[in-house]
Amino acid sequence: MTTGPHPQLQVIDREECLRLLAGDEIGRLAVISGTTPVVVPVNYALDGETVVFRSDPGTKLDHGPRARASFEVDCFDRERRTGWSVVATGRLEEVTHYDAATFARVRRLAVDPWAGGDKAHWMRLIPDRVTGRRVTPSARP
Amino acid sequence: MTTGPHPQLQVIDREECLRLLAGDEIGRLAVISGTTPVVVPVNYALDGETVVFRSDPGTKLDHGPRARASFEVDCFDRERRTGWSVVATGRLEEVTHYDAATFARVRRLAVDPWAGGDKAHWMRLIPDRVTGRRVTPSARP
Repeated sequence: MTTGPHPQLQVIDREECLRLLAGDEIGRLAVISGTTPVVVPVNYALDGETVVFRSDPGTKLDHGPRARASFEVDCFDRERRTGWSVVATGRLEEVTHYDAATFARVRRLAVDPWAGGDKAHWMRLIPDRVTGRRVTPSARP
Repeated sequence: MTTGPHPQLQVIDREECLRLLAGDEIGRLAVISGTTPVVVPVNYALDGETVVFRSDPGTKLDHGPRARASFEVDCFDRERRTGWSVVATGRLEEVTHYDAATFARVRRLAVDPWAGGDKAHWMRLIPDRVTGRRVTPSARP
């Protein structure tokens, strides 16, 4: 069904994935609730290679330690039918004052939820895998 | 940390959620692989209230019948710090010729993956829940 040049799907290397992750401020966090994946947009900042965001107590994002999560950022050009996406997958944990150095560091990050609210819990996703894909138009005419 | 007017988080009703879902062509599908949520951008079209997309055999999207999945679309304005997101959650199934009427109908949809490839499997997510949220600036100065 595709018309025009054949597109190309390229793998984005880890370094470029982290650069793209560092360049945005909103992405989508996926966690598991029971048997269902749950997706929620969150404002975030990068702390080294970890994704830091804030949540309210009692939400699905306020998970127990070591819950697995994925975090996705992307940018699409619907006119040109191109774009990229980066997914960081790993372990979710709350940052508390028990880890004083990390707690102090992440609270200095500019993680300012657009939706407002207290969002007093500082959470982070510690990725064990960061992958990315880019769709570009082919060089062929 | 927020400066400027306090934002407002509004619930989007189901009818408006479906209108927003119908108005885009790329979203993010979340499925569960083992104990990990997996997020993948997919091109899609709406068939009534079901989300139709194509996948290649052997991918994580080529799940067994009745796998639970969530599908998210959104639009963010990073300058104004506003935006909306819609999430459809439900059951994932492959559409095959065993359901001839549905098979014929979905194959007429304009589901044309940007990334190219065969993507010969026609999949659909049959939502049992469609929810949306919108962040708008407050009317307060």
